Amino acid sequence: MTSLHSLSSISPPQNLFINTNNKNTNNTNNTNKLLEKEGFSATTKPPAMRLIVPLQGVVQGRGGLILGSIIPCALFYFFQLYLKKNRNNNNNNNSPSSPPTLSPTSSNLELHRSSSRPSLSSARCSLGPARISSRASGLARPNDSPYYMGLDRARQDAYHQVDNPNGVIQLGLAENLLSLDLIEKWVSENWDGSIINGGELGINGIATYQPFDGLMDLKVAMADFMSKVMGDVSFDPSQLVLTSGATPAVEILCFCLADHGNALLIPAPYYAGFDRDLVRTGVELIPVHCRSSDDFTLTIPALDQAYNNARKRGQKVRGILFSNPCNPVGNLLSRDALYSLLDFAREKNIHIISDELFAGSTYESSKFVSMAEIVESEDLDKNRVHIIYGLSKDLSLPGFRVGAIYTSNENVLAAAKKLARFSSISAPTQRLVVSMLSDKKFIEDYMKTNTKRLKRVHDSFVAGLDQLGIPCARSEGGLFCWSDFSGLIKPYNEKGELDLWDKLLTVGKVNLTPGSAFHCIEPGWFRCCFTTLAEKDIPLVMERIKKVCESCKSPS
Amino acid sequence: MTSLHSLSSISPPQNLFINTNNKNTNNTNNTNKLLEKEGFSATTKPPAMRLIVPLQGVVQGRGGLILGSIIPCALFYFFQLYLKKNRNNNNNNNSPSSPPTLSPTSSNLELHRSSSRPSLSSARCSLGPARISSRASGLARPNDSPYYMGLDRARQDAYHQVDNPNGVIQLGLAENLLSLDLIEKWVSENWDGSIINGGELGINGIATYQPFDGLMDLKVAMADFMSKVMGDVSFDPSQLVLTSGATPAVEILCFCLADHGNALLIPAPYYAGFDRDLVRTGVELIPVHCRSSDDFTLTIPALDQAYNNARKRGQKVRGILFSNPCNPVGNLLSRDALYSLLDFAREKNIHIISDELFAGSTYESSKFVSMAEIVESEDLDKNRVHIIYGLSKDLSLPGFRVGAIYTSNENVLAAAKKLARFSSISAPTQRLVVSMLSDKKFIEDYMKTNTKRLKRVHDSFVAGLDQLGIPCARSEGGLFCWSDFSGLIKPYNEKGELDLWDKLLTVGKVNLTPGSAFHCIEPGWFRCCFTTLAEKDIPLVMERIKKVCESCKSPS
Repeated sequence: MTSLHSLSSISPPQNLFINTNNKNTNNTNNTNKLLEKEGFSATTKPPAMRLIVPLQGVVQGRGGLILGSIIPCALFYFFQLYLKKNRNNNNNNNSPSSPPTLSPTSSNLELHRSSSRPSLSSARCSLGPARISSRASGLARPNDSPYYMGLDRARQDAYHQVDNPNGVIQLGLAENLLSLDLIEKWVSENWDGSIINGGELGINGIATYQPFDGLMDLKVAMADFMSKVMGDVSFDPSQLVLTSGATPAVEILCFCLADHGNALLIPAPYYAGFDRDLVRTGVELIPVHCRSSDDFTLTIPALDQAYNNARKRGQKVRGILFSNPCNPVGNLLSRDALYSLLDFAREKNIHIISDELFAGSTYESSKFVSMAEIVESEDLDKNRVHIIYGLSKDLSLPGFRVGAIYTSNENVLAAAKKLARFSSISAPTQRLVVSMLSDKKFIEDYMKTNTKRLKRVHDSFVAGLDQLGIPCARSEGGLFCWSDFSGLIKPYNEKGELDLWDKLLTVGKVNLTPGSAFHCIEPGWFRCCFTTLAEKDIPLVMERIKKVCESCKSPS
Repeated sequence: MTSLHSLSSISPPQNLFINTNNKNTNNTNNTNKLLEKEGFSATTKPPAMRLIVPLQGVVQGRGGLILGSIIPCALFYFFQLYLKKNRNNNNNNNSPSSPPTLSPTSSNLELHRSSSRPSLSSARCSLGPARISSRASGLARPNDSPYYMGLDRARQDAYHQVDNPNGVIQLGLAENLLSLDLIEKWVSENWDGSIINGGELGINGIATYQPFDGLMDLKVAMADFMSKVMGDVSFDPSQLVLTSGATPAVEILCFCLADHGNALLIPAPYYAGFDRDLVRTGVELIPVHCRSSDDFTLTIPALDQAYNNARKRGQKVRGILFSNPCNPVGNLLSRDALYSLLDFAREKNIHIISDELFAGSTYESSKFVSMAEIVESEDLDKNRVHIIYGLSKDLSLPGFRVGAIYTSNENVLAAAKKLARFSSISAPTQRLVVSMLSDKKFIEDYMKTNTKRLKRVHDSFVAGLDQLGIPCARSEGGLFCWSDFSGLIKPYNEKGELDLWDKLLTVGKVNLTPGSAFHCIEPGWFRCCFTTLAEKDIPLVMERIKKVCESCKSPS
């Protein structure tokens, strides 16, 4: 590339052409970036086009048809020869169309095996190992987000009251253990009948091939449960696609709504896992930053600005993705806010992906409003609204891997059903969940009790932090609170935040997740998941945090 | 694009530049194709580079620095203006940066809702529905492969001896129902203790978050089972990634080994589902055609030729994917053949993906040789060999969705583990399977009995076809036979084959899968899955096929 630029500097009227050349080099670079992302090496693109323009610059000042066409033609020809020669050399070094003596090409595979294997060892060594894809290379590296690092650290040295009292207390995982006793009781009482003996299908209902996008029985049960959780709205079971957890539901939905290189707007701070969930889709997330001064609520002007900036950069924005209740903040979107979002999406003709995974984990019931309710009467908008749900949070069953896409868009439904074959739920689990969700009394009791317990532990936890001088953002749902540790960080930036995170983890032995993992632009905020605790553990957590607070405040 | 070409024809010395122009247009077209595949519209790429070359052709004959630089510059400027104007118009029509009057940009989302909603309906109509991604559009269309169409037809009108005796008999699905009674007996006897009460973990072992790539207990049990099934080879549990079925195992592995646009060689006929399994990876499959004259076995010369042709076309070949026992043929790869394949892969420095899903479904035990055994002693080659396995075929449990990737390549392992979060197996099912696989006596009995039953039904089925004058390819494993109906098709081409398939389905009421669905180049071959039948149903199937045979042979 550099040699081409230096070539262009020979010509007097080069400015014009250098400009266009640069412009085009940029385009080519962008394309190359994209290609490289897709695993193509940019160096293999023939640079003929970029070459010809400066060459013309060389000759046109001297005039004449002959010089103007023959000289560049000849130079171009020789340059191509040179490139070809070079490329062949490279190929021989890197990806061999290897020496014919090693090839068992004349042997029939079934007849006799090539006897040349021992002699291959030298060639083998020079080749190096077979490369993995460039997209997998990125994934193969260890996670460097404090979200994953913290989770790992807390897993490796997990706190246990008796066995490991100095271990790390896990406050980084949004998992609800508060009501697991209820689940355990139900499972032990119903395990037997619910699956094998209950259904008339017997073994055929669990061992044989089932629809990849979920059993209709489970869709009916899920739709019914969602109506219960989400209030005044009914869900049509035929518009559900069931997946092995909400993670593949997000991936499949985004794959269906946006192409590689397209973008989605997302209010930030946002769930630390979304970036990873979309990695295979090639869809970009554009954070729309929300601020503590707005209680971390989204504003339409901010959304509009992000949209316009993206457009200016040439990005195609295909939708808005948000979680409601918000993960990590825990606030709810009001009915009016949802209408405004729908207005915005309609105006821009883009999709809405509403992740309502924590809809049933509010601290008071009947406060949550689903996007499904907003769109219920708006026939023309139904096609642009898609809902993510699952049982990992609201029913404390992450190990069951039950997620769902709800959409009225027939094309999305058709495509998502086909993609569900990559993320199917085991039939025995489906039968078990059908049985559990159909036990109306159990579900009602569970939801009531769980809401009460959530609220109690939330309130104690927030009060505990408050006593330490750590305020929390106002929240109405979720398995976490969003807490302002900014008074304790020094310097007031991401580094200070990560230093505090490390101190909390190594000194305090509590794993909280720092705001930077959620793309929060204000340093010092942390997500604290309190549902991994028993209520009686809260004082211990506060004690540990207090220790870190004091060491931060001490003048040393 | 056309207008640019017509521009270039003004200039006298255009030939040179038309050539280079064409060359570059081709490159650009290739890039655009790629971009379009990725959902970018080719029309949005600025065509400045393609434009400037013919413009220079226009002026250079007249000579002179000034004309040579100013005229193209001015033309270029006006053309850009024109393009910009046009693009804006297009944008307004398609993906609006819409009229400011409709925008609730000045309202804070939480404060007051835009009151402009009713006035939006007209804008809404002109916008049309929000578009789904181009990659999903393809998926949303109904399947037109006879493989899927046949499966659907047989499902909708399924044969039942009493309830629907004129229904379609399903011979299109590789599902083993022959030994389901054994599974049923085990499950009903062990259901209880195996999961909840068996483990010391209790509900924590099934309801909470578990490793996405599978429980270590299940990995140990799977590795052990694989050793039993695959003969003289041991598997290291830590090199397993468990997925919700073999389908995501194939997808994840190919995602890790090849980038978008790369290719894998695959002996054809090959499993009809592979194309669909790789649709999200963007990896291309290049069939290497095997012929009936070679007993449908792969030859190295054919593989070599396909490899070289692909390289000539500029495709990067990253590996060979094959099933062993072969689906649909049912033949096994010999030890020598496997060594030759490894030699070939080493020579080309590419990967091997060995799909051994039917390894335990051979008609005589201890005939199958796993690629894992071949590579066991070859330390340097371990990184290029990857195995797909699962319990859908050999343990008759497709409804459980248990698949596996086995690889010694640490990078692939690391990346695949992360991707397993999209395809996790439910923990209750994992616990159940651990329990089942750990019951050594049951597994031994099951495998013995299943092998016997497979052989008996296979032999009866093949004999039945033979009596009708329909020979089958020699096969040693699989839930199907590969049968030569070519004597019955007219004309002798794909159309004739599909006509026969339709006749078998609509007149004969049996769903076989035609060879074209498996990319077989010789017309008239069909895959017949016989394990969906009870042995007593074989005469009925033969009767139905006979009826179609006779109608084909009759002179009318």
